[in-house]
Amino acid sequence: MKIKPECATCIVRQVVDASKEISNNEKEQFNLIKACLGVIEKIYGEDAVAAWMGTTVHRYLKKISGNPDPYKRLKDTANEIALNYLEKLKDELKLCNDYNPLNRIICKVKLTIAGNVIDFGPYSTDIDINKKIEETLSGKLKIDHSKELLNDLKDANKILYICDNAGEVVFDKILIEELKNYCDVVVSVKGAPILNDATLDDARIAGIDKIAKVITSGNDAIGVRLEESSEEFLKEFREADIIIAKGMGNFESLTEYDIEQPIYYIFKAKCLPIAEMVGVEVGDNILLKNKKLKIKN
Amino acid sequence: MKIKPECATCIVRQVVDASKEISNNEKEQFNLIKACLGVIEKIYGEDAVAAWMGTTVHRYLKKISGNPDPYKRLKDTANEIALNYLEKLKDELKLCNDYNPLNRIICKVKLTIAGNVIDFGPYSTDIDINKKIEETLSGKLKIDHSKELLNDLKDANKILYICDNAGEVVFDKILIEELKNYCDVVVSVKGAPILNDATLDDARIAGIDKIAKVITSGNDAIGVRLEESSEEFLKEFREADIIIAKGMGNFESLTEYDIEQPIYYIFKAKCLPIAEMVGVEVGDNILLKNKKLKIKN
Repeated sequence: MKIKPECATCIVRQVVDASKEISNNEKEQFNLIKACLGVIEKIYGEDAVAAWMGTTVHRYLKKISGNPDPYKRLKDTANEIALNYLEKLKDELKLCNDYNPLNRIICKVKLTIAGNVIDFGPYSTDIDINKKIEETLSGKLKIDHSKELLNDLKDANKILYICDNAGEVVFDKILIEELKNYCDVVVSVKGAPILNDATLDDARIAGIDKIAKVITSGNDAIGVRLEESSEEFLKEFREADIIIAKGMGNFESLTEYDIEQPIYYIFKAKCLPIAEMVGVEVGDNILLKNKKLKIKN
Repeated sequence: MKIKPECATCIVRQVVDASKEISNNEKEQFNLIKACLGVIEKIYGEDAVAAWMGTTVHRYLKKISGNPDPYKRLKDTANEIALNYLEKLKDELKLCNDYNPLNRIICKVKLTIAGNVIDFGPYSTDIDINKKIEETLSGKLKIDHSKELLNDLKDANKILYICDNAGEVVFDKILIEELKNYCDVVVSVKGAPILNDATLDDARIAGIDKIAKVITSGNDAIGVRLEESSEEFLKEFREADIIIAKGMGNFESLTEYDIEQPIYYIFKAKCLPIAEMVGVEVGDNILLKNKKLKIKN
C-alpha cells in the first residue's frame, strides 16, 4: 500500500513521540526530529510504501540516537496493560468458548483487535486505552470473512500468524490457541525492535512460546519485508497454507507483494488512508481475506 | 515564543490541510507537501519562532502553488458560520449588556474567544465547531485580567485591536463596540491572505469597518512582524495606549518583542506548547495582560 498525502502528518507525529521517549532533553529532541524531517522529505512521495517509509525513518532514528529500542517503555506498559486486562476478560473468554466454531473465531478475532488498539504508532500515546478496548469488544467486524477463514482452516496444515505490537500479543495468544484446534500455528515476531512491534521478548511475556513455535522475521522492518527476511521466516511463509497478518503495518506491506496463499488481515482501521483503501470508516474492525484485485492500490 | 519539538507535527498537518484546499489532485498534493517538508526541515529548530515558521511555510506554499489564498473557501465558511451563529447569540448578548462594566468585558471577551475556535490552523478542519463554541461560552476565563483591562481602559485614548481569523472577526465586533465606550479603537487585519487570518474583506463582511477605523498590517505575516509592517500600522501601534491581540499567532509573535504598552492577549490555548507557556491546560480560555518576565520563553 502506497502512502497518501496526509501520511506526512502521521510519520512526523511518530518521530516526535519517539524522540520524546528517547530523550527528555528538548535540544536533543529538536536535533532528532530535524534530522528525521530531512529523511522523511527525501522518501515522501506518491510511490512511497507506508510501512517502508516508517521502517526507514524509525531505523534512522534508532541509529542517530544510539537507542536500539526507543519504544521499550511503551512496549512494557502495553504488555502490562494487556496482561491486566486479560484478567478482566475472563468472562468474555468463557462466553467465547461456548459459541459454535464460527462464532468462536469471530469472538476471538475481536479480542485480538481489542489488543490491536494498544498501539502507540498511529494513535498518539495518551489515548484512553481501556475505553478503546471496550468499544472494540462491544462492536462488530465491519468486514467479516470469518466464514472464508473457517472454510480455509478445514483444509490447512499450517498457519503463519504474523504478529503486530507488544501488548497486542497477549490477546493474540487467545486466537492462536483457537486456531490450533485446526492445524499447526507458527507465530512470527520482529527480529529486532522497531516502533512498538512485538519481539521475542514480548512473545515470551505473552506466553506464546508455550503454545506455538515462535520465529522472527530476522529483521526490524515494519510489517513484512520479504527481501530482508530470514531463511527461517521465508520457509515458514512459503509452507503456510494460510497467513494471518495482524495490524496495519502488515497490511500496508503485504499488499505490495503477489502472494499465493490466502492471507487474512486482522486490524482496526486507525487512519483514513487505510480505511478508504478497504472501504470502511476510521475505527472499523476488519477480518479481511486478501482480494488482490479489489484492495491493491 | 519559540517552537517546541512537537510543533513539527502541527506545521506539517497545516501544510497537508492547505495542500488539500489548493488541489484535489493527489500528485499535486504530494508535490506541495514534499516541497514544504524541505522548507520546514531547514527552519525547524529550538530558535524558530512559531508564527514566523508558519509564515515562511505558508508563504512558500502560496508561491509554489500559485494560489494566493489557499484558505479562501475555509474563511468564507468561517464567516458564514460566525454570522449565522451571531443570530443564536442574541439572548446571550442581551444578557451581556445587562451586566456591570467588568462583567460586560468578561462576557464579551468570552464571546470573542468563542469566535477564536473557528480556526482551521491548530485544529484540523473537520472539528465540530458549534460544540466548541458552546463549550467556550459556558466556560470560564482560566486567566482573567479583566480588572486590569478595565483599569487601563479608564486612562486610555486609543486601543489597537489586532484581529486573528476570518469568522472570528464577526465576534470581535461585539467586543470592539464595548471598548468604544471607553476610547477610540483602531482595528488591524492582515495586508494579504495567510492561513485563515482575517483580511480587509473579512473585516468588511463582519461589518467592523462600519464601527471602527480598520487598517492592515501591510504584510502577510502570521501574527505581528514589526520589521515588515506598514508605516500606518507602526504609527497606530506606537500611538495605542493599549494593544489587544487576538489568537495564538499574535501571542507567539508579539512575545518576541519588547513592547512598552500593556498588551492583552485573548485566546483559547489550543496546543500544549502555548498552554504550558502560560501555565494553563489545553482548551483553557485566556485574557492575559502581558507580563514579559513571567511569560517570556
